[in-house]
Amino acid sequence: MQEVDLIITCSKALLLDSKNTCLDRVSVAINKDEIVAVDHTDKIEKQYRAKKAIIAKDSLIMPGFVNCHTHAAMTCFRGIADDLELMDWLNNYIFPAEARNVNKELAYWGSLLGAAEMIKSGTTTFCDMYIFEDETARAAKTAGMRCLVGEVLFDFPSPNFKTVAEGIAYTKMLAEKWKDDPLVNIIIEPHALYTCSEPLLVEVKELADAKRLAEDYHLPIGLHLLENAAERKQLEEKFGKSAVSFLQDIGYLDEHLIAFHCVCMSEKDIDLFASHGCKISHNPASNMKLASGVAPVPEMLAAGITVGLGTDGCASNNNLDMIKEMATAAKLHKVARLDPTVMDAQTVVRMATIEGAKVLGMGNKIGSLEAGKKADIIIIGLDEPHLTPLYSEYSHLVYAASGADVDTVVINGKVLMENRRLLTIDETEVMKNVREIAVNIKQSLRK
Amino acid sequence: MQEVDLIITCSKALLLDSKNTCLDRVSVAINKDEIVAVDHTDKIEKQYRAKKAIIAKDSLIMPGFVNCHTHAAMTCFRGIADDLELMDWLNNYIFPAEARNVNKELAYWGSLLGAAEMIKSGTTTFCDMYIFEDETARAAKTAGMRCLVGEVLFDFPSPNFKTVAEGIAYTKMLAEKWKDDPLVNIIIEPHALYTCSEPLLVEVKELADAKRLAEDYHLPIGLHLLENAAERKQLEEKFGKSAVSFLQDIGYLDEHLIAFHCVCMSEKDIDLFASHGCKISHNPASNMKLASGVAPVPEMLAAGITVGLGTDGCASNNNLDMIKEMATAAKLHKVARLDPTVMDAQTVVRMATIEGAKVLGMGNKIGSLEAGKKADIIIIGLDEPHLTPLYSEYSHLVYAASGADVDTVVINGKVLMENRRLLTIDETEVMKNVREIAVNIKQSLRK
Repeated sequence: MQEVDLIITCSKALLLDSKNTCLDRVSVAINKDEIVAVDHTDKIEKQYRAKKAIIAKDSLIMPGFVNCHTHAAMTCFRGIADDLELMDWLNNYIFPAEARNVNKELAYWGSLLGAAEMIKSGTTTFCDMYIFEDETARAAKTAGMRCLVGEVLFDFPSPNFKTVAEGIAYTKMLAEKWKDDPLVNIIIEPHALYTCSEPLLVEVKELADAKRLAEDYHLPIGLHLLENAAERKQLEEKFGKSAVSFLQDIGYLDEHLIAFHCVCMSEKDIDLFASHGCKISHNPASNMKLASGVAPVPEMLAAGITVGLGTDGCASNNNLDMIKEMATAAKLHKVARLDPTVMDAQTVVRMATIEGAKVLGMGNKIGSLEAGKKADIIIIGLDEPHLTPLYSEYSHLVYAASGADVDTVVINGKVLMENRRLLTIDETEVMKNVREIAVNIKQSLRK
Repeated sequence: MQEVDLIITCSKALLLDSKNTCLDRVSVAINKDEIVAVDHTDKIEKQYRAKKAIIAKDSLIMPGFVNCHTHAAMTCFRGIADDLELMDWLNNYIFPAEARNVNKELAYWGSLLGAAEMIKSGTTTFCDMYIFEDETARAAKTAGMRCLVGEVLFDFPSPNFKTVAEGIAYTKMLAEKWKDDPLVNIIIEPHALYTCSEPLLVEVKELADAKRLAEDYHLPIGLHLLENAAERKQLEEKFGKSAVSFLQDIGYLDEHLIAFHCVCMSEKDIDLFASHGCKISHNPASNMKLASGVAPVPEMLAAGITVGLGTDGCASNNNLDMIKEMATAAKLHKVARLDPTVMDAQTVVRMATIEGAKVLGMGNKIGSLEAGKKADIIIIGLDEPHLTPLYSEYSHLVYAASGADVDTVVINGKVLMENRRLLTIDETEVMKNVREIAVNIKQSLRK
């Protein structure tokens, strides 16, 4: 008998391995930060003895969700302005609210509130872009969440830097500081092609490549790309060619590129992305709410592109719930092309887990329940009217479940939530601090 | 001091009256089945003394949701088949599963499970169409829910009747039996124009009109209409004119008509509906999942048509959660017309409450928090990370909340759920019974 730190036993499991294995009466043995074994309970019981056991009757165990694109600290702006023309929304609400209010304190408490919300809805890893990302990394550490964080870079000043050089120096500092952290990973994030000059783009690409070569770093590049038709048009006029061709010309198209949104991609763009192994985060709720359009996700998948799901930030969603995002992704494409067979439930659950992990360059570490992977695991309670009866676990996750059905969350082998009680975050304190920040935000918009 | 049965006190209130009043620190005084007064807590405290008090800190009180179109008993088929071509889905899964399994027992337990799910996500009134609707009425009475139920009628036999005459007789029986019930109301429901002959349609219309004239009955007519382009084409070929023109010719266009779906309505159809006061239930999640299309709801609203929201049944949604339905309604139309200003949060919350009540002919009875209305009330807990901070209650309800945020539900003055504990339904028993029914359904499909 081998002793392990934790054994979790559930009535059902979705492993999200390459065979999409579903199991009944399953136990997962975890030692330190790692999954040691996943098998039928009777087999695990014969081989392993646990220091701690979690037995969840009428429950589904599965890998945690991977949120491929968010701005966690923007929880502070949740619902401050909705249902507006894009430029009205940005110029009269979001940009002034950010310019007048974003500081280290907002970044930390907003990110920690985001972490609380993400854990409570089953997300175990998130990829973040915002200002003062060292604070987001700190919040993720407080919470115990896995993350990929990057400081947003552009040609104009941010609340965190006066010059582009300062922004790049901050990014280098992040990469050094968090280099050996088991949870925090760094991504280089030029904001978008309409906010970043070619020299900036080239400089950060060289930085990413050099760091990776020298130190075997996980250091991808992420940027917003082709979010709506206006952006596509603007970039074509600017470059005299398509935005994706421009990216190819400056050497951006490789397996380390993660593009957020990609709503307005042509067939040729998709082919270029596919042949270069570029990754995409699809963010359907934000694309719907901001009226950006419908990304050609079925074509991306058919071309073999790795596509994950993201919630985007709370100003444009307004939540960080990956279960809601799955429902949106599955249904949006069906109605957009009048074909109920596209984006079936299993495809969408994979996008929210293992495919998202691959998007973030973590496919060998997380995203499925398999021996050798990090123990990033969630338990979903099935003993609820809205999840009864149960014919298909995938169907329930996508079309019937809600974030509140997530009972227990384990990240890197550590239990962060048990029976919906957060163990690492004092949510009362976090909500109190964010409410105080929100009072100031509200006042700042009246000026 | 006047003594009343119940006073509920909350930090926030949305009244959904004609002025869309929002209040802070509010109390609602309820006597028997009726709202006696709604005002600031200090004013209510001076005037009323309560037998029972519910004090909900950090909570929002509002009218319960009105689900304008569902098939509650179809919870039994939740997730049995998804992501399929419409005719494959209907002919190879839903129709055979229904033909082999629907009986009184399924109708009762499936409806009671639906009631449990609806109460737990804040719905207080639902409009239902299915087979053995007397059982659905019975389940609603067990649960204590308000409803408008109608036996589905068509030209071919159902598990409940061999001939059209039997179906109509059953409908008459329902109307007689539930005539004076405070919660159960009856609607006459010919299934659709492609399943009902003109004589059947004319006969049930005469029945509805005669009953209303003779007995001051609330007896509307509901039917599926123009759910997708194929139906529109088929009906135009059948009638040699548009389906709505046909309805006009047979005298159906009046304020007692409730049409479900109306996805493929022309400008002329909308004008006819508007000028005759016909009502519409918009069911966006079902329309998306079945790839039916996007109903022209902004045009309907602009024309002055009363439009409510419905979930449709659990085979095509797969849930009965009106908060999810609001999020879907708000976002779908934005992306469909690339305009983020359509279907703003306040409009959508009205559709899910007071406008839905008007659709069902109950606008004078329910749908808002006003003195004199029936006490159909929900309390939503706001002290949650995903609802923090709070800038706009409407925004949170539509873009951030989930059904699980509903803490307490009162229908007709009676508390049916308090702090998420159901008081009228034994959910363990209901789930057990539906799971047993589901085992038989699964086996029947293997035959």
